[in-house]
Amino acid sequence: MFYIIGLGLCDEKDITVRGLEAVKSCSRVYLEAYTSILMVEKSRLEAFYERPLILADREMVETESDEILRDADKENVAMLVVGDPFGATTHTDIILRARALKIPVRVVHNASIMNAVGACGLQLYNFGQTVSLVFFTDTWKPDSFYDKIKENVDLGMHTLVLLDIKVKEQSEENLARGRKIYEPPRYMSIPQAVSQLLEIEGLRRSGILSPEETLAIGLSRVGGDESQQKIVSGTLAELVTQPADAFGEPLHSLVVVGKRVHHLEVEYAQQFAVNETGWRHVARNVYKCALDD
Amino acid sequence: MFYIIGLGLCDEKDITVRGLEAVKSCSRVYLEAYTSILMVEKSRLEAFYERPLILADREMVETESDEILRDADKENVAMLVVGDPFGATTHTDIILRARALKIPVRVVHNASIMNAVGACGLQLYNFGQTVSLVFFTDTWKPDSFYDKIKENVDLGMHTLVLLDIKVKEQSEENLARGRKIYEPPRYMSIPQAVSQLLEIEGLRRSGILSPEETLAIGLSRVGGDESQQKIVSGTLAELVTQPADAFGEPLHSLVVVGKRVHHLEVEYAQQFAVNETGWRHVARNVYKCALDD
Repeated sequence: MFYIIGLGLCDEKDITVRGLEAVKSCSRVYLEAYTSILMVEKSRLEAFYERPLILADREMVETESDEILRDADKENVAMLVVGDPFGATTHTDIILRARALKIPVRVVHNASIMNAVGACGLQLYNFGQTVSLVFFTDTWKPDSFYDKIKENVDLGMHTLVLLDIKVKEQSEENLARGRKIYEPPRYMSIPQAVSQLLEIEGLRRSGILSPEETLAIGLSRVGGDESQQKIVSGTLAELVTQPADAFGEPLHSLVVVGKRVHHLEVEYAQQFAVNETGWRHVARNVYKCALDD
Repeated sequence: MFYIIGLGLCDEKDITVRGLEAVKSCSRVYLEAYTSILMVEKSRLEAFYERPLILADREMVETESDEILRDADKENVAMLVVGDPFGATTHTDIILRARALKIPVRVVHNASIMNAVGACGLQLYNFGQTVSLVFFTDTWKPDSFYDKIKENVDLGMHTLVLLDIKVKEQSEENLARGRKIYEPPRYMSIPQAVSQLLEIEGLRRSGILSPEETLAIGLSRVGGDESQQKIVSGTLAELVTQPADAFGEPLHSLVVVGKRVHHLEVEYAQQFAVNETGWRHVARNVYKCALDD
């Protein structure tokens, strides 16, 4: 059996009982570690799962799937994935490959940011399409996310914005010279994400994102305990000026609040507001949300 | 501490290790059982969790939250929720109430249909807003879902349609006479859901849903093993004529495929097709999807 097992959001204990039993039955266990990260070191996972973990980077999953699937028709092999297994296209590729090889596959689901984002108090069914935001460089500022946010904003839907992470990236020089030297990992912060949104709004000027009149919610380490998870709500102007360390360690995500926001959503997210009065003021006067007072 | 713990999708083993440890530390454990259901009986959960479970119906969660939260500042109390805790508004209500009472709260996330629907091969970030479909009666056919599907269809987004369940409902006669006699639970089937979609399309006639030219995917018991989970893809005409037992036991969900579908999504979902040739034909000719052949 080939298992693809979601690890959830935080640490070694977020695996499900079903997932843990499966891991312990496996002769080889791969840890996919490039589309997201957990909050703990690999060694802590290995100690808890009682199995050595083979790190599988993007290159390996994409080009060596037959090695990962080797003998999975005769013994159990698992690939562990942060969040849920259906967060990234690559996992459907390896499932299709397994089926072609007549290897039985079992997916073990878990929480991912796509549903755990509900922790901010916005209702999941009011979210439109999800967008990804990549690190801008001086010469490369891809802005297709803007059109998607605009589609959601025009309908009044919320938008979950997933922030870029750079793991095992090479510098341009090292890449050009073929040197397999990797840069330290980088994770986009919420102020940086908001800054990039506003930069593109400044170029495109369709008025969908306003520093003072667009509400947003930054989330970090969703699913962690009170010392880990951090949620901050406010206007884009408030979020962009948060200190760099306001959200702590990665991973970070951002939600742009849509105009159809319900008053119960506003009330719930108010507990996370930089400025509660300001939060309610914009919700009432710009979003036309029917708040009690 | 007040814990709200997601149980995931299928059975007692879908709880996370963190969730299980929390349950075993609790002096009272409530099972919320009206917005969704697991595939197993309460007694099996109790045996595995080693705790008696107090069933909490909608009325209890909404009106007796202080009883549920009693002493949670001094001991541990848990409410167990099928899927993830942020699937229904009610859970934000009880969290707000706990905070007002200065009771610490910890949410333990899990998979829900909102992210596990990725099992059908469609990418989660290509989904628009989620809609709910309720049982029609002769006199009551609420159709606001249609406008929302239209918004998604117009943008080319996929739509997750959540199908009604009726648990602990009273007949009109028993309700009128104040008799607390409840009807057997009812779960909307996928053919019935498609039939209701087409009924409203017949009335509204905006052409967003076509029996022969709209692709959809029915899912049941997502997250179950091969004997449980069932996914069937096809045109609406194909799904509406599936035998009533084609999808087996509840819960069932439906996805309406949007026009921006990527060829890898079509390729993946093809394995579930009623008719693979027809599936590809509509994807290529109606959806204009760039398939290889």
